[in-house]
Formats: sequence, structure tokens, C-alpha cells
Amino acid sequence: MSGEGFRFSLTARDGRARAGFIDTPHGRILTPCFAPVGTQGAVKTIPAWDLEALGAQLVLANTYHLYLRPGDERIARLGGLHRFMGWNGPILTDSGGFQIFSLQGLREVDDDGVTFRSHLDGSLHRFTPEKAIRIQENLGADLIMCLDECAPPMDYDYNAKALERTHRWAERCRAAHTRRDQALFGIVQGGVFEDLRTWSARFLVSLDFPGYAIGGLSVGEPRTLTYRVLDLMDALLPEEKPRYLMGVGTLVDFVEAVARGVDLFDCVMPTRVARHGTAITRTGRLNLRNAAYAEDLRPIDEQCECLTCRRFSRAYLRHLFNVGEPLAMYLTTLHNLHTMFRFMEEMRQAILEGRFADFRAAVVERQAAFAMDPEPGAES
Amino acid sequence: MSGEGFRFSLTARDGRARAGFIDTPHGRILTPCFAPVGTQGAVKTIPAWDLEALGAQLVLANTYHLYLRPGDERIARLGGLHRFMGWNGPILTDSGGFQIFSLQGLREVDDDGVTFRSHLDGSLHRFTPEKAIRIQENLGADLIMCLDECAPPMDYDYNAKALERTHRWAERCRAAHTRRDQALFGIVQGGVFEDLRTWSARFLVSLDFPGYAIGGLSVGEPRTLTYRVLDLMDALLPEEKPRYLMGVGTLVDFVEAVARGVDLFDCVMPTRVARHGTAITRTGRLNLRNAAYAEDLRPIDEQCECLTCRRFSRAYLRHLFNVGEPLAMYLTTLHNLHTMFRFMEEMRQAILEGRFADFRAAVVERQAAFAMDPEPGAES
Repeated sequence: MSGEGFRFSLTARDGRARAGFIDTPHGRILTPCFAPVGTQGAVKTIPAWDLEALGAQLVLANTYHLYLRPGDERIARLGGLHRFMGWNGPILTDSGGFQIFSLQGLREVDDDGVTFRSHLDGSLHRFTPEKAIRIQENLGADLIMCLDECAPPMDYDYNAKALERTHRWAERCRAAHTRRDQALFGIVQGGVFEDLRTWSARFLVSLDFPGYAIGGLSVGEPRTLTYRVLDLMDALLPEEKPRYLMGVGTLVDFVEAVARGVDLFDCVMPTRVARHGTAITRTGRLNLRNAAYAEDLRPIDEQCECLTCRRFSRAYLRHLFNVGEPLAMYLTTLHNLHTMFRFMEEMRQAILEGRFADFRAAVVERQAAFAMDPEPGAES
Repeated sequence: MSGEGFRFSLTARDGRARAGFIDTPHGRILTPCFAPVGTQGAVKTIPAWDLEALGAQLVLANTYHLYLRPGDERIARLGGLHRFMGWNGPILTDSGGFQIFSLQGLREVDDDGVTFRSHLDGSLHRFTPEKAIRIQENLGADLIMCLDECAPPMDYDYNAKALERTHRWAERCRAAHTRRDQALFGIVQGGVFEDLRTWSARFLVSLDFPGYAIGGLSVGEPRTLTYRVLDLMDALLPEEKPRYLMGVGTLVDFVEAVARGVDLFDCVMPTRVARHGTAITRTGRLNLRNAAYAEDLRPIDEQCECLTCRRFSRAYLRHLFNVGEPLAMYLTTLHNLHTMFRFMEEMRQAILEGRFADFRAAVVERQAAFAMDPEPGAES
């Protein structure tokens, strides 16, 4: 179950923040770590060699999408997801649950599994815990996830009912999983409710997974409630297992979650907003489509050392977005990922050097100052 | 006029094929040379560092498009096109004539210039020879072109009338051009008609341009007529000036034109077809969207050493095109450009070593064999 070649170890703690590493059959992940999202087997616009050069340590791929196209069995015949994607570093796959439960009106859940229609062609499909594991075994990622039912975070009754099911499914996923070169994570659910989250954490810990994901957060609930759940998770989840906060997020989210003992993150945000012209910097965001940048010779971020900032001006990027050149999406994605990865590295260093509290305070202060007085063309 | 820091020199001749170099203020261009097209200031999907790594020696940008967006005066204020694009190698701009005369129904030509409506917003604009030169001086490319009137290649009367105008405009462009760090090329027109082409070549040679473009070919006329015009150009244009065949093309076009003394080429084809899923190889084309490649673990071309072929399978590329991932366009463009550049290098080497006739015969034979018996999923 806990996977051959898989090991998590803490190197340092600073308050509740943790720095460590996860060894996987495809290499070591230094934590805290941010995983970019390669939904369909590619981080949008970014070739694998750029991921390597940027220092990506872990890439997420979506089980739901790859199951539909090109098919998990096809990927298995082609030698697995690593070979298919040309990425030989660690990969994480989700279970498909989040995507399926986002298909409003197209799915029907029962205790045994969930039936849904493809968003592509309306064809009928069914996932059970066993099926979600079989698909993820075909894909062959290093870190894989139990199938869970994702409920709206503020609905107590829905969460209580879904949680019962999620726990049964976790047991079945654990029983169905046979590949010893993968680590299967349990996913804690329960919305914003302390009693449900406590129940979920305790139950999953009793199953002794090699790692725990925290699902169902950062989906619209107030941040104060998010942080309260993370505090609770830190108290309930075992220290010696990695904790993965799914679908988060922003630089402030990272420091606040790391301050509460989280080790792993994934989010489409940095790559998605890049394709719409938003560049992320330490101090805020720039909307590169803004006319204010039309003759601005500065790079996106004068402190940034990414390839984009070393060569191209805001004026050029603004022009590329303005005329619809696909290169604009690539150059901005490259910058945003560089910013995310360097941020995680610096946060890790701060933990190793026992100055995480200062690091966190500086991040929160910079973002607050920016929100008060953004640059022309900036988004808060 | 002939430009400071500009020099063309022939290194070797093999039959009528020529190998040489053009020195420009932004570096040396080894000929024969293929220039990829960066219409709006970017070769679509390809960052400048990839152009360098691929060995691009010259990039074309379109005056018409850059005049409209972001505007040539803006580019001048931003330090010129090289700095704007982040590309410090040689750049060639066309005059805008070809684009304007492709705007059917939106333009009116008179002896003084041409009035047209923008394809973007219908706004009214006017190019004169002087204006085309001023715009190109604002952009600051190394090689620039006279404004010409582009006529349908098979229409004698239209070509005769347009040619008279093109010649007057060439005189005016020559008189208007002041930047000594640019080389202004005259453009020979005259459709497929030997008397008109002869008149045009003789007239432009009398103006003593530092280089000659051959326009109005490869726009739908039979290839036998194209080649006849090229034979004529070889006889009429001065040996000691570079010859640039505009808008060509394919590997067979390259060898046939080089066999007739052409030195420079540009074409959108390799980059445009890549974005639609067509990969170019020495032996023909592959349509990467084809289901035949769904489980094909081979690279596009087993002989190719480009980054794409060294890492990714046809199966992966087919998947990326199939699901609409933008990365597919980038990876295929990278491959097609690599193929073009290596082909030009090998052709140059064949000329230097006196074996161009064999090289040409092999290219023609491979393409003919492929047309007879294409691979599954291949396009002829």
C-alpha cells in the first residue's frame, strides 16, 4: 500500500510549517511543493523540457480527462503516463471525483459509485472506487487519490451523507490498489464543519494511508473557515505523512496553509490566468492586456529572472495578447510558473532557516499594500 | 542606399546554385537561407530563444500588420523591432504591398499610392512608396522592400499596367530611403510573362538595388511557368546581388529555385501547416490528427534530432491535437522549422562540396516516391 520507493521525511519544522521531502520512484519532491496542472497530459503551452528547466518537481494530471481521451488503457499500452507525456519526474493523478461532481445535472451517485455523462459527447460512464483505482494504475502516476464525493462546503446534511460514502469508497480503493510503485492518498472531506472534518480525518488515519489530501476547500467558502479546517487537520493528521491541499492557489494561500502544516499544493490558477493575460508577481497581479503597458519597456517583474522577464517587455507581451498571438500565453505561463516555483523554494528556505514567521508576514503585508495601491493595469 | 554593414558575397557555385553569405548590422546570414514568418512580431508559438537554438538566421515580419498593431511609430519609440521582438538577429520586412493587394474589394490603387481599409476595423489607410519606406525605417529591419503592386500572375494587361506603377514606386522608394543601416531590395514583378519580367528585371537593375526580390510567384500559377521565370531571373539579375524568392515554400520548391540561382526564401507554410497538425519530413508530410498514429510510439521522423522528435511520440502529438492542447502547435512548429533549417544547411553543404545535382535529384525522387506510396495518415 504505502508504495515501493516512496518515503516522506521531515527535514525541519518552524512553528507548524514543515520542510521535508517525498521520495518517489521518479525522483525526490522537496516540500512545500506546488504542482502545476497538466489536465490532459500537458501543462498547457509548456513543453516538458521547460518544466525541467523551471524546476517543476511534480505534475498533476486529471484522471477524468485522460480516461475519456486518449483513454487510460491506451496510455498503459503506450508505456504509461510518464513515457506518454515525456516527463520522467513525479506525477500525481486525482481520482476524477472532483471533475465528475462538477458535472451538474449530468451525474447520479449511489453507494456503489457514480454514473455520469461525458462533457464531450454525452456518452454514459460509471466510476466506482475500484474503477478509479484501475484507471490510475493504468496511468501509473506516483501519487494517486481515492475516489471521493465532493459536496458544497457549506451544506451540512449533504456533507454528512457524502462523507459516509467517501469513507466506504476509501476502504474499497485501499483494497483495490495493487501497484506497489504508487502511493495512494486518502482524501479528507467534510466541508467547513469541524465535527465532520474530525470524523473524516480520524477515519482515514485509521486506514493508515501513506499520505492525506484535504479536499473540498477553496471552492468558495470564506477564507477564515478554510484556515480553521486547516488548523484542525494539522492537529488530527499524523505528522509523519505528507498533507496535500487540493486546488490551492495563491501566494497568500500557500503561506497560510504552510503555516498550518500543509506540504503539497496544486492549482490551475497560475497557468489559467496566464492564458488570459494575468501575470503574477510577488506584489500582485498585472493585467497585461491593459493599455497602460503599451509602451512600458520594463519586464513583468524587474526582480524576476525567468526567461520571459530577461528578454521581453510588458509592451511586447501586451501587443502579443492584443493581437491574439499564442506566444503570449506561453511566455506568461512560463513567468507565472517560475514565480510559483521560486516562491515555494524561498518559503522552504525560510522554514529551514527558522524565519518562516517573517517570511509569512512579509508576504501578507506586500499583498495588502498592493491591494491598497495597485499599479496601473494591475488586478488585485 | 546599399546599407552600412551590409555585404553579399558568394562562397561557391555549383551549376547555377549559389552558396554565400549576407552580412547585416545584426549578423551574418548564410545562404541559401529560409526565413520563418513572424507576421505580428512573433513566429507563431515560437519564442526568440527557440529561434536561436534552431539556428534561424533571418526572421520576416509583416509591415502591414505591424503598421496597424502596435503601430510602427510605437515600435520606433520602443527602440525598434529587434528590441521589441527580443530577437537580435537579422530581420526582413516586406513592404505591405502583398497584404494590401490581397484585400479584395477593400482597396483602391492610383499612380500615387494605394488606399485600403484595415481588415481589423474597416478604418481607412493609405500607403505611398514614401510611407512604406517611412514605416519600414521606423521598424528598423535589416532588409526592407520597395512597395509594389501585386497582380494575378496570369493576367497580362493587369501585370503590364501594374508593372509601370511598380517601377515608378521603386524609384520613389529608393529616393525616400535614408537609413544607411538597412538594405532596400527592389521587387521584380510581371507575372508569368517573359517580356514583362525582362522589362522589370532590367529596369530595377538599372536602379542598382543591393538585392532583388522576385515577387508574384507561387500564387497559383503552374510550377513549370514559375521555373521558367526563375530561369529568366537568373540570366537577368546581377550575380553579385542576393536574390530573394518571396513566399516559397516547400522542400522541392527550395531545390528547384536554388538550382536557378535563388538565395533567400520566406514562407508561412511550415509554421501554418504545423498549427493544423501537419508535420513536414524529408519524405513527405504526416497529418498528426490521423487515428493511424493513436498508438504509434515513433517520433514524427526517426531521423530527426529536433527536441520534439527526441522526446515525444506521434501518439502523444496526435492526442494533443485531438484534445486541442496548444502545446501541439508549438511542438509541431518546432519540428517543421528544424526540418526547414537543417534542409537549407544540407543544401548549402552540397553546393559547397559540388554535389548539388545529386542532392536535388535525391530530394525530387524522395518526394515522388512518397506521393506514390504515402504512410498511413500521410498527406501528399
